[in-house]
Amino acid sequence: MTDTPGIVITGGSGKMGQMLINTVLASDKCRLVGVVDRAGHDWIGQDVGTAMGGQPVGVIVTDDALEAFAKAQAVIDFTAPAATVAFAELAAQARAVHVIGTTGLTDDDLAAINAAARHAVVVRAGNMSLGVNLLVKLTQKVAAALDEDFDIEVIEAHHHHKVDAPSGTALMLGEAAAEGRGVDLKDVRDSGRDGITGARKRGDIGFSAIRGGDIVGEHDVMFAAAGERIVLRHLATDRAIFARGALKAALWGQDKGPGEYDMMDVLGL
Amino acid sequence: MTDTPGIVITGGSGKMGQMLINTVLASDKCRLVGVVDRAGHDWIGQDVGTAMGGQPVGVIVTDDALEAFAKAQAVIDFTAPAATVAFAELAAQARAVHVIGTTGLTDDDLAAINAAARHAVVVRAGNMSLGVNLLVKLTQKVAAALDEDFDIEVIEAHHHHKVDAPSGTALMLGEAAAEGRGVDLKDVRDSGRDGITGARKRGDIGFSAIRGGDIVGEHDVMFAAAGERIVLRHLATDRAIFARGALKAALWGQDKGPGEYDMMDVLGL
Amino acid sequence: MTDTPGIVITGGSGKMGQMLINTVLASDKCRLVGVVDRAGHDWIGQDVGTAMGGQPVGVIVTDDALEAFAKAQAVIDFTAPAATVAFAELAAQARAVHVIGTTGLTDDDLAAINAAARHAVVVRAGNMSLGVNLLVKLTQKVAAALDEDFDIEVIEAHHHHKVDAPSGTALMLGEAAAEGRGVDLKDVRDSGRDGITGARKRGDIGFSAIRGGDIVGEHDVMFAAAGERIVLRHLATDRAIFARGALKAALWGQDKGPGEYDMMDVLGL
Amino acid sequence: MTDTPGIVITGGSGKMGQMLINTVLASDKCRLVGVVDRAGHDWIGQDVGTAMGGQPVGVIVTDDALEAFAKAQAVIDFTAPAATVAFAELAAQARAVHVIGTTGLTDDDLAAINAAARHAVVVRAGNMSLGVNLLVKLTQKVAAALDEDFDIEVIEAHHHHKVDAPSGTALMLGEAAAEGRGVDLKDVRDSGRDGITGARKRGDIGFSAIRGGDIVGEHDVMFAAAGERIVLRHLATDRAIFARGALKAALWGQDKGPGEYDMMDVLGL
Repeated sequence: MTDTPGIVITGGSGKMGQMLINTVLASDKCRLVGVVDRAGHDWIGQDVGTAMGGQPVGVIVTDDALEAFAKAQAVIDFTAPAATVAFAELAAQARAVHVIGTTGLTDDDLAAINAAARHAVVVRAGNMSLGVNLLVKLTQKVAAALDEDFDIEVIEAHHHHKVDAPSGTALMLGEAAAEGRGVDLKDVRDSGRDGITGARKRGDIGFSAIRGGDIVGEHDVMFAAAGERIVLRHLATDRAIFARGALKAALWGQDKGPGEYDMMDVLGL
Repeated sequence: MTDTPGIVITGGSGKMGQMLINTVLASDKCRLVGVVDRAGHDWIGQDVGTAMGGQPVGVIVTDDALEAFAKAQAVIDFTAPAATVAFAELAAQARAVHVIGTTGLTDDDLAAINAAARHAVVVRAGNMSLGVNLLVKLTQKVAAALDEDFDIEVIEAHHHHKVDAPSGTALMLGEAAAEGRGVDLKDVRDSGRDGITGARKRGDIGFSAIRGGDIVGEHDVMFAAAGERIVLRHLATDRAIFARGALKAALWGQDKGPGEYDMMDVLGL
Repeated sequence: MTDTPGIVITGGSGKMGQMLINTVLASDKCRLVGVVDRAGHDWIGQDVGTAMGGQPVGVIVTDDALEAFAKAQAVIDFTAPAATVAFAELAAQARAVHVIGTTGLTDDDLAAINAAARHAVVVRAGNMSLGVNLLVKLTQKVAAALDEDFDIEVIEAHHHHKVDAPSGTALMLGEAAAEGRGVDLKDVRDSGRDGITGARKRGDIGFSAIRGGDIVGEHDVMFAAAGERIVLRHLATDRAIFARGALKAALWGQDKGPGEYDMMDVLGL
Repeated sequence: MTDTPGIVITGGSGKMGQMLINTVLASDKCRLVGVVDRAGHDWIGQDVGTAMGGQPVGVIVTDDALEAFAKAQAVIDFTAPAATVAFAELAAQARAVHVIGTTGLTDDDLAAINAAARHAVVVRAGNMSLGVNLLVKLTQKVAAALDEDFDIEVIEAHHHHKVDAPSGTALMLGEAAAEGRGVDLKDVRDSGRDGITGARKRGDIGFSAIRGGDIVGEHDVMFAAAGERIVLRHLATDRAIFARGALKAALWGQDKGPGEYDMMDVLGL
């Protein structure tokens, strides 16, 4: 087991951080070698197993990212833009694969990450699930195969804590549909229907956002014509799929050359 | 057969009018005794069967509503507000049951119809399908049984010609849910989600409107809590259900006293 | 907190047992006062928190049910028929509310439980979720409201480990539909369609069983007529709803007189 | 308009035959030049428009297929195996494109059709809808992309008159899934689940058949793993899509060389 890749998790005390830690601990294809959190957090200096309310696992939470990364073959990072940009440089120095699930990155952030990817492997994706990435691919192909007699609608449902609509994944699906049709999403996007809307415009791509309970994430891409419909649907029922996808990316990246990759590369889609 | 109730269809040349005519012709519980259309329409004076592209059926289309109503036991009317108000008075004079599927009636229109209902039976409903009316009833009961841990969302889908959102039936379902909870829909309505919406407000009733193809009408009322969901769904796949509901109302009204009724009365819900 | 009801969990080391323990520990309306498992299990004598891989919680797992029940106001029991029959007598002696989620009970088992219920409160249900019990009620009412023009189909989906089909909950829904129609389910049950089946028999109640992945439990009751359908759907996405339902039953039973109750009583449906 | 391809419909008095006739009459890309029905049918010798209850269209129904085919560029044929085999030879003699939607053909029938295809264009498909054929293609690709951690289930719903289960289209989807996985459907088919089935076998492809009302045809292919699901869905809501698909095939075949084709060829999938 000691020769399996060593993994560091950043933002370890967060909900996604703990999910990632448990996923790494449960896998026999890698080892947990570090957990990073921000300076001052009360987990710093504690064993991460104890901090999560369980038995000790022999890994002490630290705020020294560089030291942690130096012992690792991969860093899995679902934090925030500023932290992720800093981690990208440190991971590149340590020649560790940097798996990025952070969202809300600006163009400047992306440029900085891109620079880091000249020296190390970066895998970055808005959604790390196998199923969603497959759905994106299918959406593009179906949109390319069908003409505008088929109206495209993207419908998504998420838990009631979600603060934005449509979801990032819904927009990613809309982009894929637009690309399949050879149009620009911003010219055909129709979201937030309410009131006297007039008839649906041919060629538009519609979006609906359902919010309720603790729904993890559901996405439908509907192609509706006269007399028939095709629906491509993805249901996520456990956030662990995102953690498993990230770990898969970390392992996949071990033998790749420097550069920036996405989940399509990891999944061979 | 001559002692079955005689039915007049108004607005006979329209899409819904023709559906109603065919429904009456296909039934052995009633007879078609008249078809009314507006003065000047090219169907006036023609046999309605011929006008619809088929064999003659022995009923000449007329623009004289009163004469037509005088021979009838019921009038089925899916036209427009001004016509419906005029027909209400004529139907009352003829002591014919007036079944009204017309939408967009103002308070003044409703008052005029109500006055007519002092002398004759009026059955008026926003949606004449058995299933939708049952769904409205269920929605109210379920909303009353569950507390606000269950987020309520109404999701509807219709064909791409529809010009308003949410649908009238979706709003009727939202009203029923609000009534079940003892709140006012206008205080909790959340429709047209788009952009940075913030987290869903507890107690809100959300609406989503999907548009595509030739979808006749689909309505979901979702109650979503942590770990479980209830969904009440109605699918209409053939507009004939609205015509059959209207005919059912016309027959039901034959032995009732003057007054204004709705489909809940007809269906005994 | 010491005056909240004390709860004992039987079969504590099982998947459902651990779910129940965590639910009780997370509630501020009750206390965990005992965990019972079978003699010889390696958890016996250990603190249950430690046994589950976490911090100690001050409750030692025991194989002496009577001693544990004597300190409790309620026993929650999702074990096996033989154990449950024995626990019913011991819980009655201890005057503790006995909440039974055990399935597969024979008529003899039920008679023994019924005897115990002369001296204490027993709450027994095949499915403890609020939503499913509501769905059962709705199914009965809708089946009573609609005639046989509406074909009834019950469709369920569960994880790939499930060994029987249709699910117990699907059959409970089928029973409710049959009762609503005033027929006996065994006369109209149509499950396992395959091959040349002939046309669907009017009045039949059909069942379909979908198996895949880790689906917790999904049930649809469809009423399909010409041109329209009503679907009543329940989705369970987290087994915790069954544990929460059981705890709710334990608390509800505290001020009730001896007798056998079900979740309809608990939920006031 | 006289230089558009002339079409003959066989079995013109049947439900599908009338749908085909109306589709051809409504199109400006072709002309109806003949309608064939069996000797002795009371439509023979009548104008087909009149026979269908409408106005005459100038085409007399005949039982002389060869004479009808001789004037045509294409024959659309949804009849029965024996008739279709005979029509294949006659269509080949007439050098007319033969579009075959007939089901239940034996190996001998297929051999006879194949022989006819040496001299003329034959397009044969179990389902002529664009959407279903696209779904078949997608099913194969997704099954190839995902491993057996994803359980495959095919769920279909049809009207209550249907006499067989699963539907031919469901089996076609199952074949596509099996092909994608490189297995033989007969080794992994699991249909008609009922009773004590044991746990689902890894690698199996499950089938469920729902029957009710007048459902035209709905097919879901579900890929279910731990924590996520992909569903590929097709809904047919109007049989006209099959007629439009057949007409599309008839027009597509006009400039092709002799041979047997399917809808994948027609649709360029």
